[in-house]
Amino acid sequence: MRDFTFFNPTRIEFGKGKENQIGQYVKESGAESALILYGSERIRESGLLGRIEASLNEQGVTFEALGGVVSNPKLSHVQKAIGLMKAKKLKAVVAVGGGSVLDSAKAIAAGTNYDGDVWDFFSGKAVVRDAVPVFAVMTLAATGSEMNAYGVVTHDETLEKFAIMSSMLNPRVSVINPELMATVTKDYLAYSAVDIFAHCLDLYFSASYLPEYNAALIETILRTVMRTTAALLKNPGDYDARGEFAWASTMALNGLTFVGVEGNSYDTHMVEHAMSALYNVPHGAGLAVVLPAWMTWYKNRRPERFERFAIQMFGVKGADAGIEKFRSWITSIGAPLTLAAAGIPESGIDALADNAMGLARMWGMDGAYTRDSIVEILKLAVV
Amino acid sequence: MRDFTFFNPTRIEFGKGKENQIGQYVKESGAESALILYGSERIRESGLLGRIEASLNEQGVTFEALGGVVSNPKLSHVQKAIGLMKAKKLKAVVAVGGGSVLDSAKAIAAGTNYDGDVWDFFSGKAVVRDAVPVFAVMTLAATGSEMNAYGVVTHDETLEKFAIMSSMLNPRVSVINPELMATVTKDYLAYSAVDIFAHCLDLYFSASYLPEYNAALIETILRTVMRTTAALLKNPGDYDARGEFAWASTMALNGLTFVGVEGNSYDTHMVEHAMSALYNVPHGAGLAVVLPAWMTWYKNRRPERFERFAIQMFGVKGADAGIEKFRSWITSIGAPLTLAAAGIPESGIDALADNAMGLARMWGMDGAYTRDSIVEILKLAVV
Repeated sequence: MRDFTFFNPTRIEFGKGKENQIGQYVKESGAESALILYGSERIRESGLLGRIEASLNEQGVTFEALGGVVSNPKLSHVQKAIGLMKAKKLKAVVAVGGGSVLDSAKAIAAGTNYDGDVWDFFSGKAVVRDAVPVFAVMTLAATGSEMNAYGVVTHDETLEKFAIMSSMLNPRVSVINPELMATVTKDYLAYSAVDIFAHCLDLYFSASYLPEYNAALIETILRTVMRTTAALLKNPGDYDARGEFAWASTMALNGLTFVGVEGNSYDTHMVEHAMSALYNVPHGAGLAVVLPAWMTWYKNRRPERFERFAIQMFGVKGADAGIEKFRSWITSIGAPLTLAAAGIPESGIDALADNAMGLARMWGMDGAYTRDSIVEILKLAVV
Repeated sequence: MRDFTFFNPTRIEFGKGKENQIGQYVKESGAESALILYGSERIRESGLLGRIEASLNEQGVTFEALGGVVSNPKLSHVQKAIGLMKAKKLKAVVAVGGGSVLDSAKAIAAGTNYDGDVWDFFSGKAVVRDAVPVFAVMTLAATGSEMNAYGVVTHDETLEKFAIMSSMLNPRVSVINPELMATVTKDYLAYSAVDIFAHCLDLYFSASYLPEYNAALIETILRTVMRTTAALLKNPGDYDARGEFAWASTMALNGLTFVGVEGNSYDTHMVEHAMSALYNVPHGAGLAVVLPAWMTWYKNRRPERFERFAIQMFGVKGADAGIEKFRSWITSIGAPLTLAAAGIPESGIDALADNAMGLARMWGMDGAYTRDSIVEILKLAVV
């Protein structure tokens, strides 16, 4: 095992009705005012926002509420929220929604006590040294953002979809109440399942050294995702399946699968970020297209890992058979497999490759990937 | 899944030479003085203690060093150390050793800012509300104490082996350097492996509700223990195996296997604490004796869980076949299977049962266990 530091101070409050304690969680941090950040007005109509507001009121935490966060969240909205934080002197951010809302909240938390432009943290021009505390009430399980230090935001003009990272941005408390996720559509359930797979498989296949324990842990997480996705497609009200799905999503990106690993990278994320930045494809849908294409392109670089995947996940022998089974699974849950199915024309490949190379350079992957190799991968997703 | 709170703020610093940074870790906490707590003088002879002292000196952290912690650590030694903390106004405890040293350190940390007797926390008379920070440099992997809130100490006179728990006692930073564990004897490696099994199997078998994910995670941890124990018995210098063994030990009792579970208890620990309290048996050796006996006694209460264990862990069908394979494994690694092999006479069973019932009452298990049932279990460990 390689040297590592593991530190994850996020407290998870999991279960029914835990969102009604959010006021107490914020109060415990010492913050007496907060921004409630959310996406669509559906959470107001469902009564969730009212319960959050009531809980904050009960604890004497004053607040402003700001909706409008969109999927693949935009820098301009983050900047607007930071303006509100500064103007109203708000001391915490409470994200109510999925990964996009929480990622935005992290960027807002980083930007509130910073004089420059928050994009400086994404572009590498500045490092996060101060942040207001972030709290989360999750309505969608996919990104793992509820228990990690990462946030991803897209620049409105350059369409760069970049990330920030700081343990100061780990949510202080994240509420995971599976009941709040029961109304997620089947499409988004499938996209979420693929997103969890991508968090695991980028690591599983790319790592030059992967301890056996990590490989087995990843397979355990992925089997949980497959089992609970199938259960939820049949019965969206299956509380235990919803709960295990959510927890698998948290476990896939809270750092535990990464300990002791060497040489891993975020290969499919690097390619997919271009797709959702340029075509506003849902992240998980983009990953469903990229993952099998990338696996086909990549398989000969780690043959033993692909053979293992085939046997452990699908009980079949050989890399190709494993990839084929994986493609069938993606189709079976209703996620797209081709660029066309995700609404991306073949003519868009060049621009996608240019955008992805920007991220490859940011993430130090421009040694492993050229523009041509990204074109090759995307061409494998044409049919 | 049942409601849960997961919060584990311990930072793990894993890898070669990380103990040389301990001064920096203590300094970061704001403490400028510390007690270095250890067991035998071997760690002074090996040079480890000197490196810890040098690291503290380098950061200007003043310290006292106190050795003499024994296996199944004693209250009197904890009380003596608390006296030293108070007299010298020390502000942190650095445990250098295995679970016994760290458990003692947690009790010392809890007692330093408390006016009464530290045993009050164990007996349930008082709750930990203040503690100095604890740091750990592990030389043995077994108890999981390096990443949890628990500490176990034995009362010198009553021979009660009781536990304290508070998230304030989670080590701030725990150093896991597999190289420091390379000289662990084969006996203690085997005892440690069984201790990890017991942490997992008490939960696995006793829980009235165990999510499928948790069951699979536990099996992943236990397979790691079996694989790495075999590798280390062959080659004690196998760094990667030593590292995965240590990490499996941490993962087995850092809370992650317990999330969402209902109705679990520490059945074999309840019985074994009596054995190590009355006969000073190494904890893992006592567990090796109790585990199969308890499983035989308990198997019909959770038949489906025992059948699963047999198939998943050993590829055999039926509870009895699984238990038999498990017994063979215990023998194969050199751990004892009978009371006699652990140096306990059959005539001691009555006193063991009396002592265990004290813990059963403390842990609220006196509904599930009578004195007679503990006698029955121990009698299954006679041959």
